[in-house]
Amino acid sequence: MPFQNDFFKSAFSVDNIIFGFDRDTLKVLLIKRAYEPFSGEWALPGDLVRPDEDLDQAAFRILEELTGVKDVYLDQVHTFGEVNRHPRGRVITIAYYSLVNIKNVSIRASSFADKVAWKELRSISKLAFDHYEIMQTCLRRLRRDVKFQPIGFELLPEKFTLTELQRLYESVLEKDLDKRNFRKKILSMNVLKSLDELQQNVAHRPAMLYSFDAEKYKLAKEQGFIFEL
Amino acid sequence: MPFQNDFFKSAFSVDNIIFGFDRDTLKVLLIKRAYEPFSGEWALPGDLVRPDEDLDQAAFRILEELTGVKDVYLDQVHTFGEVNRHPRGRVITIAYYSLVNIKNVSIRASSFADKVAWKELRSISKLAFDHYEIMQTCLRRLRRDVKFQPIGFELLPEKFTLTELQRLYESVLEKDLDKRNFRKKILSMNVLKSLDELQQNVAHRPAMLYSFDAEKYKLAKEQGFIFEL
Repeated sequence: MPFQNDFFKSAFSVDNIIFGFDRDTLKVLLIKRAYEPFSGEWALPGDLVRPDEDLDQAAFRILEELTGVKDVYLDQVHTFGEVNRHPRGRVITIAYYSLVNIKNVSIRASSFADKVAWKELRSISKLAFDHYEIMQTCLRRLRRDVKFQPIGFELLPEKFTLTELQRLYESVLEKDLDKRNFRKKILSMNVLKSLDELQQNVAHRPAMLYSFDAEKYKLAKEQGFIFEL
Repeated sequence: MPFQNDFFKSAFSVDNIIFGFDRDTLKVLLIKRAYEPFSGEWALPGDLVRPDEDLDQAAFRILEELTGVKDVYLDQVHTFGEVNRHPRGRVITIAYYSLVNIKNVSIRASSFADKVAWKELRSISKLAFDHYEIMQTCLRRLRRDVKFQPIGFELLPEKFTLTELQRLYESVLEKDLDKRNFRKKILSMNVLKSLDELQQNVAHRPAMLYSFDAEKYKLAKEQGFIFEL
């Protein structure tokens, strides 16, 4: 019979890969674990899902506990369930990623963490559990998603220059982009609003500021437009 | 403390959305449940994941039990975990989808099913549990994936005509495609092999047969080519 009680002996957790962008660097929010297993090691923020909690709820809770933010881009990526991935029993974990603007966020350690910090993605070579693999999977997803959905803007301040936008894409995709082609492509999609406003407090010649026109994008999308960079 | 035993009281299952294509119709493999809950109702094939089983393993096992096939396209889509989605306790389910060529497959009912059958996608309006919602999510994924990856070919016989290929896309995307544009686009991608061989046993004028050139696609992809229909 399929419903033996033997099966009701597992737990499941949610792990959040929270990406942020700082000038020209892609970062990810990590915690230093306060508990065994892997006590004292850096890990993705995550927690067991409570018996009365839906999965998305748990992911938003973890995000809010660490960053204070609620209304940000958050999406489920993949579920990891190797038999021995957790030393304490069968624990499968559902990975989410979210995109936040680092400047809007003040991070604080919560119950399960001693410390919380933004770490440069390129500096990370090892994490607790299978979190390094999870991070790589989410990074691949981010790289695909930024090409086909205008989610990159979540990582930028509301007003940005085209150079900042290009830096963001270069940093996510880990490659240099041709300035002229990039500008041509992004402007031809007609989803940016030129603000008639210049950068302030910069040493170089101030550049024009833009913002993402969510309303225009929504209308265009309804008519079959596909964002593609 | 995070590791109370209270948390180790859930189970998790894998549900498989197995898509097949029959001439011009997209179908999905359903089972008639042999057990409560939802005994006698149609459902997606699925099973609890065994304590010693990885998630992908479980998905392949279910597929093989029902269809006898192993080496087919199979991918994880999304995990569903609403608190009350299962009447017997907290059971989260990881949805997979796979694409099979109906002609290569002989289906058989297995332990958890009374019956197994290919059902026309459009004819399905209700399924056990939250399986209808799961099916819709997987269908959206299939629709996106066939546009950007050459996975549609998995649903076709090895040799096919361009008309058959177009019917497949029309049936997955649920819209008519312009014949001339479709042919131009697919041929310009250079991933089809023209077989210098004609259809047999057809009433109309036999059309040229093609096959998907996986090797060519692989090489092109390594050089940055993106499949896009």
